[in-house]
Amino acid sequence: MGPILLASSKRAKGCRVWRVALIGCPSKYNSAQTPTDPRRGRTGAIPVTDRRLASLSQRVFNFSPGPAVLPLEVLEQAQEEMLALPGVGISVLEISHRSPAFDRILEETLHSLKALVGVGDDHELVLLQGGASLQFSMVPMNLLRGFAGAADYILTGTWGELGAKEARREGTVHSAWDGANVNYDRLPSDDEIRLSPKPAYAHITSNETIQGVQWKREPSVGDAPLVCDCSSDFLSRPIDISKYGLIYACAQKNAGIAGVTAVIIRKDLLGRSRDDLPTMLDYRTHVKNGSRPNTPPVFAVYILGLVCRWVRETMGGLAAMQRHNVAKARLLYDAIDASNGFFSGHAQPECRSDMNITFRLTSESLDAEFVKGATGRGLVDLKGHRSVGGIRASIYNAMPVEGVEALRNYMLEFQRSHS
Amino acid sequence: MGPILLASSKRAKGCRVWRVALIGCPSKYNSAQTPTDPRRGRTGAIPVTDRRLASLSQRVFNFSPGPAVLPLEVLEQAQEEMLALPGVGISVLEISHRSPAFDRILEETLHSLKALVGVGDDHELVLLQGGASLQFSMVPMNLLRGFAGAADYILTGTWGELGAKEARREGTVHSAWDGANVNYDRLPSDDEIRLSPKPAYAHITSNETIQGVQWKREPSVGDAPLVCDCSSDFLSRPIDISKYGLIYACAQKNAGIAGVTAVIIRKDLLGRSRDDLPTMLDYRTHVKNGSRPNTPPVFAVYILGLVCRWVRETMGGLAAMQRHNVAKARLLYDAIDASNGFFSGHAQPECRSDMNITFRLTSESLDAEFVKGATGRGLVDLKGHRSVGGIRASIYNAMPVEGVEALRNYMLEFQRSHS
Repeated sequence: MGPILLASSKRAKGCRVWRVALIGCPSKYNSAQTPTDPRRGRTGAIPVTDRRLASLSQRVFNFSPGPAVLPLEVLEQAQEEMLALPGVGISVLEISHRSPAFDRILEETLHSLKALVGVGDDHELVLLQGGASLQFSMVPMNLLRGFAGAADYILTGTWGELGAKEARREGTVHSAWDGANVNYDRLPSDDEIRLSPKPAYAHITSNETIQGVQWKREPSVGDAPLVCDCSSDFLSRPIDISKYGLIYACAQKNAGIAGVTAVIIRKDLLGRSRDDLPTMLDYRTHVKNGSRPNTPPVFAVYILGLVCRWVRETMGGLAAMQRHNVAKARLLYDAIDASNGFFSGHAQPECRSDMNITFRLTSESLDAEFVKGATGRGLVDLKGHRSVGGIRASIYNAMPVEGVEALRNYMLEFQRSHS
Repeated sequence: MGPILLASSKRAKGCRVWRVALIGCPSKYNSAQTPTDPRRGRTGAIPVTDRRLASLSQRVFNFSPGPAVLPLEVLEQAQEEMLALPGVGISVLEISHRSPAFDRILEETLHSLKALVGVGDDHELVLLQGGASLQFSMVPMNLLRGFAGAADYILTGTWGELGAKEARREGTVHSAWDGANVNYDRLPSDDEIRLSPKPAYAHITSNETIQGVQWKREPSVGDAPLVCDCSSDFLSRPIDISKYGLIYACAQKNAGIAGVTAVIIRKDLLGRSRDDLPTMLDYRTHVKNGSRPNTPPVFAVYILGLVCRWVRETMGGLAAMQRHNVAKARLLYDAIDASNGFFSGHAQPECRSDMNITFRLTSESLDAEFVKGATGRGLVDLKGHRSVGGIRASIYNAMPVEGVEALRNYMLEFQRSHS
């Protein structure tokens, strides 16, 4: 997968960091020659300088729940073009959002994302600012205000709860299922979901990052438009867009950097927005102006485009991406299940997330020791969310399998030395 | 000023681009040695590689009204740290917004910006997403909703008009002066401003990018809190924050890249916000959570921090920055005034902007020829806004004086050859 394999570690600035070995690397890392890498469609590759090797050797495995690890190829292209976009003479950080150069970037990004996700003629795709948190409000402002009926929320974790809280400011909210009493360790069956008579929409969170539960199928919600906060598994697997009324996803998990959020909305639902909405909070503004009613977050859009290309060209598309992600998650879940209770998973096995693997050891002090030891090995940001505790390993698209293997090996070793 | 001087041009990919000569450059460009540049507080400088020289030689002078040119030093530091922040081992594009590394970046950026602008104990500074356009709504949502009185707008150009339009969705708007009938070519005198009896606030746009008019003093607005859209001259000159109730500014003109917006608000005005506001649109949410209620636009915050450091350490602070900007603007205004009507400025002389120099030639076809010729010389994005026509040269903080001189020389040459 990734070019980096763990090889040795050394102590630097007070903490141990792993050096990368150049085993399995594209040839560009192994010589000073600069061959063309046809996958990346650019001329020339990256010369090996001491500085570059020093940067690479510093890199650790980053299990952050988001912002999260990015493909090395994306970082390198951004680095390479930082002073001047080829043929433009201006950095992507400096180009006008009305320039032909950004016209191309925006068009390619939208096109690439639509093709990857399978957005057809029934839906619109727009890119916004403000993160998923602003969508918690924009969804009900556009779809619930003035609607004769409630918005139904199926609550499977912390993020769904926050979404419902904002929706209550805009209208009536009905809790169609709430996993709070099972500590959000599972999803409901279809039988357990109690919809309101004529819902404005039914809302789910496809993957709860804090609890580590993930919908692998859509719940049955009848005629209600299904609205999904897809922030933490967007681009990690294929989805059937035709089943959704609206999908929103911030980019900083699988799709890019913080600062841009994708919204996919079924065209007929645009008719719900009222004319008294603030212009920038009305989905129609962004649809009508092709995601450019004002200055969009240019660099975040550019990175999203590079990530889309990486998913498609390097990883082989969303189905291949999913196989890859499932395999990575299995490495860790297998270690948990084979540990005889030394590690215990938070989520019920049938609801487990492929993105965020949540588990705990037999005591809080052992949790802390585990995290500390991991950090020393260059396996960083493994501490669980303060509301749940324990350990959380976020292994989004760009986490190389080598990183997951290193964590799995550390788990086995830690268990051996503490049993 | 900047390290780049025009030296020669060549044709590449269908358009002529200027090559940079290494005259006046810091020594790091002139040898393969890597001395430490103490101003930048980092170890090691940037090795001269063919790729780096190629990038530098591609760079043109970018007169875009925003997003706009950035300091080369900022681009270079971003480039250098793109694979891994020193001592962290993770790219700034990948770090968690709750990590110690981002704690430092956010804290330093906020501290640096407050110190530079002179934000004291009476005001709060927050960093938001959504651009100035979202502030057009957030300002009246927070300060006008439920207030017994109108919001007064002093309209000196296109952006002020757009702000007033959004405010009308939230309450009563009073036009205290409107320059539409003079084609927004000047500011009002204090005598011309007609305030409403007890305004919620009085709003100005400190610099109108499209018309090129700029307030160099604050208008007299009595007890009304002065609210200012400072987007296009923020960090270009000192301002007396104590005179303002609220200032907002997107970063992509003088302060950084698109995707982050600074808001400075007098603490007592936070009491105006009503509890029914959507959480992310309530200024109190951002103040209470130190600009981090959800994932902030990490990279845009990082760049803002680098630009603040550049203004302070390299340029000598806001007073020096202003002297520099005034001198640059004078180069162009002097050329306009000495042209015997060949060039005519849009704004009245006493209201001229130091940021956006707007002028026209004696016919639209000559305007077009001028822009085309400029582009061929690597002086790009000089076409005026479609609503005003003519030429607009945006010469924000990071536009080097060499770029302005190149434009001035081209103006003189163009006049000679077309008179």
